[in-house]
Amino acid sequence: MPDFFEVVHRQRACRAFRPDPVDDDTLGKVLDAATFAPSAENRQPWVFLVVREAALRGAIGECNRKVWEAGARAHSEGRLSPGLLREVDEGARGGVAEAPVIVVVCGDLELGNARVIEASVFPAVQNLLLAATAVGLGSALTTLPLALGDELRGALGLPGHLQPLAVVPLGWPRKPLGPPRRIPFAEKAFRDRYGAAW
Amino acid sequence: MPDFFEVVHRQRACRAFRPDPVDDDTLGKVLDAATFAPSAENRQPWVFLVVREAALRGAIGECNRKVWEAGARAHSEGRLSPGLLREVDEGARGGVAEAPVIVVVCGDLELGNARVIEASVFPAVQNLLLAATAVGLGSALTTLPLALGDELRGALGLPGHLQPLAVVPLGWPRKPLGPPRRIPFAEKAFRDRYGAAW
Repeated sequence: MPDFFEVVHRQRACRAFRPDPVDDDTLGKVLDAATFAPSAENRQPWVFLVVREAALRGAIGECNRKVWEAGARAHSEGRLSPGLLREVDEGARGGVAEAPVIVVVCGDLELGNARVIEASVFPAVQNLLLAATAVGLGSALTTLPLALGDELRGALGLPGHLQPLAVVPLGWPRKPLGPPRRIPFAEKAFRDRYGAAW
Repeated sequence: MPDFFEVVHRQRACRAFRPDPVDDDTLGKVLDAATFAPSAENRQPWVFLVVREAALRGAIGECNRKVWEAGARAHSEGRLSPGLLREVDEGARGGVAEAPVIVVVCGDLELGNARVIEASVFPAVQNLLLAATAVGLGSALTTLPLALGDELRGALGLPGHLQPLAVVPLGWPRKPLGPPRRIPFAEKAFRDRYGAAW
């Protein structure tokens, strides 16, 4: 039984995966956890495209690579540490597509208002990432391929009411993941009003 | 040590709280967990306004009540079960403001792009809700008061670059919370392409 706080403190992005498959039982546990997130009016406007087919994963990886090279890389260069930039680089240029599973998480606009759909879908995405960590899977939250929404929509056969919001590669990590680095919460929290330090 | 999957399956909205205070250590544990969420470029664009002052909580509750009565209630009527509607009604008309702590979670637009800030803030909100569940606190994810963003912004002294995204009441539940109800994940998941059932 994985300890809740231990899972939370261990979760971090994985961008290099072993080719070994991920079985349905393990994926089911992760997807089930995702659906226990809150949503406006409990309408549960999430839809998961669980992509294992190699050609489709390649197409998603290709969207990722295009967006990264068309501008995202230039934007991140100098903002990310050299180590992290290299890691994201390798992920965008192939690592993400090499994950044996890519989950595309969509918001169902027939069940949620487009203006606030993110508030009802990203909590589910976070449950998915945490549950992946709990069962030992590597994962990452990426939104890059969404800049090519129409290309992605075509490949996955998505109808108009499904809006892709997140792309999550899942697989067994190629190497152990280090601890995540975070700014202490006290530097991000105020008492009552802005300016009154925690 | 709370079990990860048990916490995930137990998390649900709480809208009626005991007046007992929540100490800093407990809140710190919850806020710390929130900051371990992922964000674009690990920029961590979250800011937490931790509101305990009664007058301020009243003002936030008042925003909630106004938005609810101005249209949200009418929108939800007939869509929610009578029991859930009554619960949300009581929350909007006083229960939320009675929580001893209200956390307003903002996105820092100096650290994240407004177009995708939700993807970097709602995972932290979900960590916060789960951690609250793990320590026994009741919580709820609400976005209603944000329809009155300027009023909220004024009361909390928020500068222009902080965009309020979620309002989370925290406190000890007045009564035990039942289990959350969810549609099974298999009805929300497809294999590879839309239409191919799980």
